[in-house]
Amino acid sequence: MKKKSTNLRVRLPVLIFALEVMIVVLYAFFVTYDDQANALLQNNQTRPMDNSLYQNYPFFADIQVMIFLGFGCLLAFFRRYGFGGMVFNFLIATFTIQWAILVQGFFQFYYDGKIHLGVLNLINAEFACAVVLISFGAVLGKTSPVQLLVMALLEIPVFGVTEWAVLKYLKINDAGGSILIHIFACYFGLGVTFVLYRPSINEGHPKEKTSYQSDLLSVIGTLFLWVFWPSFNSALTFKGDDQHRAVLHTFIGLSASTITAFALSSMLSKNGKISMADVQNVTLAGGVTVGASVDMMISPAAAFILGILGCIACMLGYKYLSPFLARRLRLQDQCGIHNLHGLTGLISSLAGICGILVATEETYGPSLYQTFSHRAPPEGDPLLAELRVFIPDLEAGLGRSAQEQALFQVAAVFGTIAVSAVGGLLTGVVLKLPYLASPSDENCFDDELFFDVPPDYNSVNGPQEAWSCVLRDANKTDVD
Amino acid sequence: MKKKSTNLRVRLPVLIFALEVMIVVLYAFFVTYDDQANALLQNNQTRPMDNSLYQNYPFFADIQVMIFLGFGCLLAFFRRYGFGGMVFNFLIATFTIQWAILVQGFFQFYYDGKIHLGVLNLINAEFACAVVLISFGAVLGKTSPVQLLVMALLEIPVFGVTEWAVLKYLKINDAGGSILIHIFACYFGLGVTFVLYRPSINEGHPKEKTSYQSDLLSVIGTLFLWVFWPSFNSALTFKGDDQHRAVLHTFIGLSASTITAFALSSMLSKNGKISMADVQNVTLAGGVTVGASVDMMISPAAAFILGILGCIACMLGYKYLSPFLARRLRLQDQCGIHNLHGLTGLISSLAGICGILVATEETYGPSLYQTFSHRAPPEGDPLLAELRVFIPDLEAGLGRSAQEQALFQVAAVFGTIAVSAVGGLLTGVVLKLPYLASPSDENCFDDELFFDVPPDYNSVNGPQEAWSCVLRDANKTDVD
Amino acid sequence: MKKKSTNLRVRLPVLIFALEVMIVVLYAFFVTYDDQANALLQNNQTRPMDNSLYQNYPFFADIQVMIFLGFGCLLAFFRRYGFGGMVFNFLIATFTIQWAILVQGFFQFYYDGKIHLGVLNLINAEFACAVVLISFGAVLGKTSPVQLLVMALLEIPVFGVTEWAVLKYLKINDAGGSILIHIFACYFGLGVTFVLYRPSINEGHPKEKTSYQSDLLSVIGTLFLWVFWPSFNSALTFKGDDQHRAVLHTFIGLSASTITAFALSSMLSKNGKISMADVQNVTLAGGVTVGASVDMMISPAAAFILGILGCIACMLGYKYLSPFLARRLRLQDQCGIHNLHGLTGLISSLAGICGILVATEETYGPSLYQTFSHRAPPEGDPLLAELRVFIPDLEAGLGRSAQEQALFQVAAVFGTIAVSAVGGLLTGVVLKLPYLASPSDENCFDDELFFDVPPDYNSVNGPQEAWSCVLRDANKTDVD
Repeated sequence: MKKKSTNLRVRLPVLIFALEVMIVVLYAFFVTYDDQANALLQNNQTRPMDNSLYQNYPFFADIQVMIFLGFGCLLAFFRRYGFGGMVFNFLIATFTIQWAILVQGFFQFYYDGKIHLGVLNLINAEFACAVVLISFGAVLGKTSPVQLLVMALLEIPVFGVTEWAVLKYLKINDAGGSILIHIFACYFGLGVTFVLYRPSINEGHPKEKTSYQSDLLSVIGTLFLWVFWPSFNSALTFKGDDQHRAVLHTFIGLSASTITAFALSSMLSKNGKISMADVQNVTLAGGVTVGASVDMMISPAAAFILGILGCIACMLGYKYLSPFLARRLRLQDQCGIHNLHGLTGLISSLAGICGILVATEETYGPSLYQTFSHRAPPEGDPLLAELRVFIPDLEAGLGRSAQEQALFQVAAVFGTIAVSAVGGLLTGVVLKLPYLASPSDENCFDDELFFDVPPDYNSVNGPQEAWSCVLRDANKTDVD
Repeated sequence: MKKKSTNLRVRLPVLIFALEVMIVVLYAFFVTYDDQANALLQNNQTRPMDNSLYQNYPFFADIQVMIFLGFGCLLAFFRRYGFGGMVFNFLIATFTIQWAILVQGFFQFYYDGKIHLGVLNLINAEFACAVVLISFGAVLGKTSPVQLLVMALLEIPVFGVTEWAVLKYLKINDAGGSILIHIFACYFGLGVTFVLYRPSINEGHPKEKTSYQSDLLSVIGTLFLWVFWPSFNSALTFKGDDQHRAVLHTFIGLSASTITAFALSSMLSKNGKISMADVQNVTLAGGVTVGASVDMMISPAAAFILGILGCIACMLGYKYLSPFLARRLRLQDQCGIHNLHGLTGLISSLAGICGILVATEETYGPSLYQTFSHRAPPEGDPLLAELRVFIPDLEAGLGRSAQEQALFQVAAVFGTIAVSAVGGLLTGVVLKLPYLASPSDENCFDDELFFDVPPDYNSVNGPQEAWSCVLRDANKTDVD
Repeated sequence: MKKKSTNLRVRLPVLIFALEVMIVVLYAFFVTYDDQANALLQNNQTRPMDNSLYQNYPFFADIQVMIFLGFGCLLAFFRRYGFGGMVFNFLIATFTIQWAILVQGFFQFYYDGKIHLGVLNLINAEFACAVVLISFGAVLGKTSPVQLLVMALLEIPVFGVTEWAVLKYLKINDAGGSILIHIFACYFGLGVTFVLYRPSINEGHPKEKTSYQSDLLSVIGTLFLWVFWPSFNSALTFKGDDQHRAVLHTFIGLSASTITAFALSSMLSKNGKISMADVQNVTLAGGVTVGASVDMMISPAAAFILGILGCIACMLGYKYLSPFLARRLRLQDQCGIHNLHGLTGLISSLAGICGILVATEETYGPSLYQTFSHRAPPEGDPLLAELRVFIPDLEAGLGRSAQEQALFQVAAVFGTIAVSAVGGLLTGVVLKLPYLASPSDENCFDDELFFDVPPDYNSVNGPQEAWSCVLRDANKTDVD
């Protein structure tokens, strides 16, 4: 009996307690407070209200809402998998952030033998968390919580290394994380779902349906993501005008993709009706598309156009590319992350490169070398001293030309795709190991497998009989 | 067949693409960054953390939640029109903000041949958006998305001109927007609904019902509005003590109207039971009622009393005035905006006038001339120099007396009512043009008309048979 | 007929109007603006952006979301009592804050014959509100809104006196309110529910069930609480590094308890399935457990361990202690507040005491005397002058040793338990008075009693027939 093997009673506690022991030990040995959270380092030179907490916490809180409520509600769109979508999101997000604090901490916040923890690390860890949750979208409903935790356990180090290598060696401009977050997450998720391919559900699974309430809940998730996306895209930009532009561009890009999504949704449906799946997903495309150039002086009109382009690519992807990928390339991309994060991420990267190539001192003034920090003159260059008259705290850069920077961006895109896809494939292989409680095809997209469901579960979410019938037919087809 | 004419497949995309081309062209030619978002204007005099972003963005984000989640959930109260309420709200809000950036930008943020865009404009545009969404409440469920976009397209310029004229020529005190937002929106919406009068649904439409889940969802919307209303009412006041008072008064006013609403709801129902419609709407009355005097030294007790008065007026309006307006004056005010925004707006305006008349230097000290900026002495007046000893950045005013200011407030109220009502009537006439996909009476309040609904739609939202029966009877009555 | 006595038509309005008259009169005579909200006190020395509003309002807004949306959704978990959970929460929270402004204001913000009101008072009042809402959890579904208002009316003064006595005389460290909020609320609630004991529902009430939608809604409430809990625990700490640590610890503690909850939930269920009740409640245990030591230098690993311990205690409490308390001690604790707030509060208090005992100048530097302000040297002590070189605005303390401070913490714990339990018992006696519309056993957990329910109420929430049958059986058993 396959069903037996999905019992979580031993598997899940064993895995979680093992992870917790690991985390506690590593925290105990390696994690301490950063200077802004350490009582010992406060003195009469420290002004409490200048603490970095007050610059970072509002953005942190906004992103928290996106992660836990935005993703949580958005992923609850299946009629019989609302618990799974919302609650596994909760579980994975929580674990991922704890784990990313360690992994990213080791790469980015490690000195004097310790990882130094402040709210800034938490923001970074939330970005890593967004990566895992996006990848989760590809395998939603087809994986057990044990598998999902293992996926997070493996994805974070791959992401951490990639992020570190790209930031340290390639040194790119990517304020909104189009390359490192969206593209990475997308191709990692596709890699995983490629390995976890389930031929029997390729023609559609009888439980792969929404309900009226789940559609509404999912839109609420979309709205949370929509409302706080400007905080996401701007959280790690330079403070001041850069962050201000990031907020404006994200808002404009999202607005443009939203109204375009409504137009395309009714235009591409057979009867002119709006599809809720489009409202839930395609409206958000603009937030990704403006990402890589979000802090540049691209002009509000360009942000608007990027939103439209992202939306068109995303919509056509859902309509034509996703079915093709599923049928021909074994890529069963449950939430269509390749449309919302992959295609848009690529457009965004391209736009970022254009933004780099057209950036001049005429448009930016001396802050050109702040927004594009790697183009700042290197230490010792007399030009640096000149610039510091205008921007006293300008950091020395690498003296890159725009063209050089653009090439590094290209390298980052291809490098990220390669590493994430390979990482995803290998992770997929690990997820196929026995004892990870992988659900049978029949039990995919069904909360009954892993949750104590309330008494109205079957009556509210469709008669079980009907499902079984359809499923039997579907299975027959598979057997044929 | 009437049904044919509601197909959105061509209408909606054509309208949206036309609007987008217009917006992109206008953005490209006229919209640039304001000084706080422009990299070129940053130099060694600019402190990044002093960027206006940090003063405005938290309020902007709060109002975003109100607009997209607050209004969105609140308007999803019909059992068969949850998608419409939440999703059309999303569409219209998004379009309106883009459009208001241009229209208000032209009137208020235009210089050197460009509209200068920063987060402050976005806050203003969100207020304009609130106007359209309130008006939307009057015609909820009875209009197509095409009609709603046209309504927004027309309402924003009328609002923009009114706002500009009132602020530039009448120069009123109205921090919470009781006159310009609530009264304008109310009478504009009533104008539209007057023209769109549908006699056949005057005795109630069989689909005009809530469900258990839709009632809960709608209360969640109410709670979002409730929680962030202090940000709404205080977003554009003077910084410092004025904004502090605005937060306090809004909170107190809302609290007072909330507990009063519970008392009145059980008192006025035949069986002593609480009505969810009251919880969803009447509780919010206090937020409007304190609006016009929200930054004045009216005292916490006065804010409390204003909340109670607003609640009583709003409740009696729902109970007695709305049915009267619908039957006798062809005003089918779907969400009762005349109660929640009209009556309360009028009370608020009156309270604002009282607040102006009783304001003295004894209570306010020299900041009297900041809160009531038009009462500040004009440039050149020696009194101005004296006051500037206390408030160095006090701007010169018009030297109005309290009585003069009060008269201008009265003029603003009547002027706003007149312009908005006429604007609404004319807009209503435009919305009756053919090709705007106006739903037939039968299909009002029904998501099936414009959305691909999930398989459980009819089972969850009531048996279609029953509705049809009732509808047939209702139609019969109409024919008679 | 018992049913007659639950009609709210007269009772609720009479009570609310009486309360409102009292509040208006007291506000009018005693409540004025605090210095930061008073126009009269602004002058050329006042910098508007330094107004305390900007330090407090973001935390206030976050806690508002927790109170109204977090608690509101969380308490809506019964399938037939969603309106009651969410809406009575709204009513009580609103009234409680108004009332706490007066009561706490009298004890803490009273001088020159007036209560001085600013956003800081509102934050304090929200903490008082959290106390009442937690106690509400013990009697959820078994009380009328009249009873709940009376409970709030009585609980706030008992809480206000306790808070004042503990802060003024015992002077404890309890940044997250583990003692004053969680322990107080828990034992007060248990006191009330002890008196309101209903033997007939001890074996379970047929309506005490969740539905698929109510479970989802309740998780959303949990997520709101989870996301903003760092704001709750840090709202009243010292600004700067103390607040920074409070945010970090709360986040880490919640994360630890969340993943532990998933492990324990599947481990302790008979079939390895995750229980939604655990996801809704036990995940939050860590937020309470870190409370009393949240601003101390306990180390991130310790916060993690506290989260795990809190979670284990809470889970075992739900599993084994709650049923025992209900059967043997007449403590029908509807939401299990003794597990989520009592046990965790005790652990937290103990952890706080440990944190105090191990705190040294080596770890904290001179800010030791800021975090543990009562250990600061008293006025006149030469040591104080020395310390003020490093922390210029250090306030004089009591020169307590760590051991002394620890003893005062112990006294506060026991004192709080005693006062709150007695207060709860007496309040329970008052709630048994006639005319308070207490629901009959049969009508517990049912919205139909106090609300106008929508037409689908019985079909969505389970056939009434079935309930009656079960209920009849249940009643039989009671009679036996």
